[in-house]
Amino acid sequence: MDQGSDKVNNEGSKLTHYEGTEKLLELWFDTITLENGEVKKPKLPDDLRVIPRDEIAEMLVKVKCEIVSFSERDEQYAYVLSESSLFISKRRLILKTCGMTTILASLEPLITLAEKYCNFKVVDIFYSRKNFMRPDLQHSLYKSFEDEVKYLDSIFDRGAAYVLGRMNGDCWYLYTLDNSSIEQPDQTLEILMTELDDEIMAHFQNTKGRKSEAVTKDSGIADLLPDCMIDGFVFDPCGYSMNGLLQNDGYVTIHVTPEKEFSYVSFETNASMEEYSSLVERILTTFRPGKFVMTLFTNEQAACRSSRGALKETFLDRYTRQDRQYSEFKNYDLTFGHYIRDKKA
Amino acid sequence: MDQGSDKVNNEGSKLTHYEGTEKLLELWFDTITLENGEVKKPKLPDDLRVIPRDEIAEMLVKVKCEIVSFSERDEQYAYVLSESSLFISKRRLILKTCGMTTILASLEPLITLAEKYCNFKVVDIFYSRKNFMRPDLQHSLYKSFEDEVKYLDSIFDRGAAYVLGRMNGDCWYLYTLDNSSIEQPDQTLEILMTELDDEIMAHFQNTKGRKSEAVTKDSGIADLLPDCMIDGFVFDPCGYSMNGLLQNDGYVTIHVTPEKEFSYVSFETNASMEEYSSLVERILTTFRPGKFVMTLFTNEQAACRSSRGALKETFLDRYTRQDRQYSEFKNYDLTFGHYIRDKKA
Repeated sequence: MDQGSDKVNNEGSKLTHYEGTEKLLELWFDTITLENGEVKKPKLPDDLRVIPRDEIAEMLVKVKCEIVSFSERDEQYAYVLSESSLFISKRRLILKTCGMTTILASLEPLITLAEKYCNFKVVDIFYSRKNFMRPDLQHSLYKSFEDEVKYLDSIFDRGAAYVLGRMNGDCWYLYTLDNSSIEQPDQTLEILMTELDDEIMAHFQNTKGRKSEAVTKDSGIADLLPDCMIDGFVFDPCGYSMNGLLQNDGYVTIHVTPEKEFSYVSFETNASMEEYSSLVERILTTFRPGKFVMTLFTNEQAACRSSRGALKETFLDRYTRQDRQYSEFKNYDLTFGHYIRDKKA
Repeated sequence: MDQGSDKVNNEGSKLTHYEGTEKLLELWFDTITLENGEVKKPKLPDDLRVIPRDEIAEMLVKVKCEIVSFSERDEQYAYVLSESSLFISKRRLILKTCGMTTILASLEPLITLAEKYCNFKVVDIFYSRKNFMRPDLQHSLYKSFEDEVKYLDSIFDRGAAYVLGRMNGDCWYLYTLDNSSIEQPDQTLEILMTELDDEIMAHFQNTKGRKSEAVTKDSGIADLLPDCMIDGFVFDPCGYSMNGLLQNDGYVTIHVTPEKEFSYVSFETNASMEEYSSLVERILTTFRPGKFVMTLFTNEQAACRSSRGALKETFLDRYTRQDRQYSEFKNYDLTFGHYIRDKKA
């Protein structure tokens, strides 16, 4: 990640911290229904990708990040950002930003842009993040999830906020409308890893002047998912991001903060699978985290049907489970797990 | 409940509020292991019930409540309190208090008393409560669960805190050590009900001078569990509490705050059953809540094995599920559900 932009010196010490932990905003849009019951005619093509890039860039200024790379495949645009990623497809927008970004500042501009260019409104939202390593360094709204919820409640009706895991330890926060309005199969797997293996992190250190393709290949990231169109990016002096585009509106995104003091790697995909244990094993082997939080969100149309059955804990010979929780929503279910590597493993 | 003791006038209005929602503290004790690995000899009989009643009463003063009735059966003592209940058996103590009580003020006295009279130490704790209707009226520590967690973390190592349900709506908080130290079968079912039926609440109104036995019988409470030794208590001018003692260290406790503006009924039992749907149905019929939160906590030794299978949602023809969550701990699992009665039901 772009370490230059928001290095923070602790008082009285030379330590710096970079918060790899992302804030993740997934928005689903649909046509607007008028008071008389008619659908407000969508502007054609009815596709979020018609929003001009300069409008997107302006929205990102409010979030305190910028576009550093772009790729596209089928009906999906993918941007690597100075702090993480942005994916735009016809009716779904995913913005993921780390560091000290102010992601929720994107909401009002995005709602306005979707109406202006597509006659679309937001029909569902999933806003989530892991607990920060250093919440005290975040901008004020993001120091406590309760404040983020208050802000979201000021924009949306009937939002529901949850904490999975330990509120006095490692946990994962979620805010959603759970509106049952998403009819296509949808599933999101996230693995948020900390205390990573030094040797593995070395792939992402001293990246100045190196080609991202080499890092993608040498680190094993290239082999994680088949048929994936990868747009990788290396940061100066260290750090790595990639967006991968799959067929059928699929994506993968990986972000690496390699510094030993605050190492962090996130993996996220909406790849459709009947079960995820083989992918999870490949990720654990590739990154060898000391701790990880894993979430799988699936709706009733998803190929795996239930998140719980699709997330087998094949790694319990090397990791101890701290927590596992299974939550049922209207049209989604969610499995959350938190694991710590055994000292001998 | 004893409405006289802590009626609170809102500023500028004549409304009063009584917080029926209880704080629930369950403590498990065991012998103390010395540094050389030997067990510190328990004082005989090694039983929490040897703690003198005047010491218990003094501890309750700190919590801001007092004993109003006592019963015993087999190896269990049960006290009805001015604000809810206290159960003491050989190595387990359950304190449940409502209103504006300061339940955590009991912790240090109880730790001291258990060591003084029994050479016991705390080996596990379950502290839980539903969100309050009016947290602003609570004493400062109890206005936010985060503060309660900070206080508990100052006393216990490795405590884990959770929020089940919606942190911006109806939810249930839990703090536990989950120490895997409890080897006897253990299960706790709680049903916390609000917006209760007026006709049913009439049984618990105008109770001055009425006999508790009549209220227990007329309300249907007498028929909820077989072979239950009931100690009921009616409050002036309204409200009802009961402790029921079952065989084998079993208990039931019910507390009713009947006022329409803030009606609340809690049901709790550790009765061992393979599954709970018939009991849950009897409770819903007896109290007819508009909303309820239900939790079942079971350890691996419990007759029902898993809380999830033991809590069937047989009532979904009358109630809509808002949330259901299933959590796995080291030796326990927990199922949480939140339901709202359908308007037509």
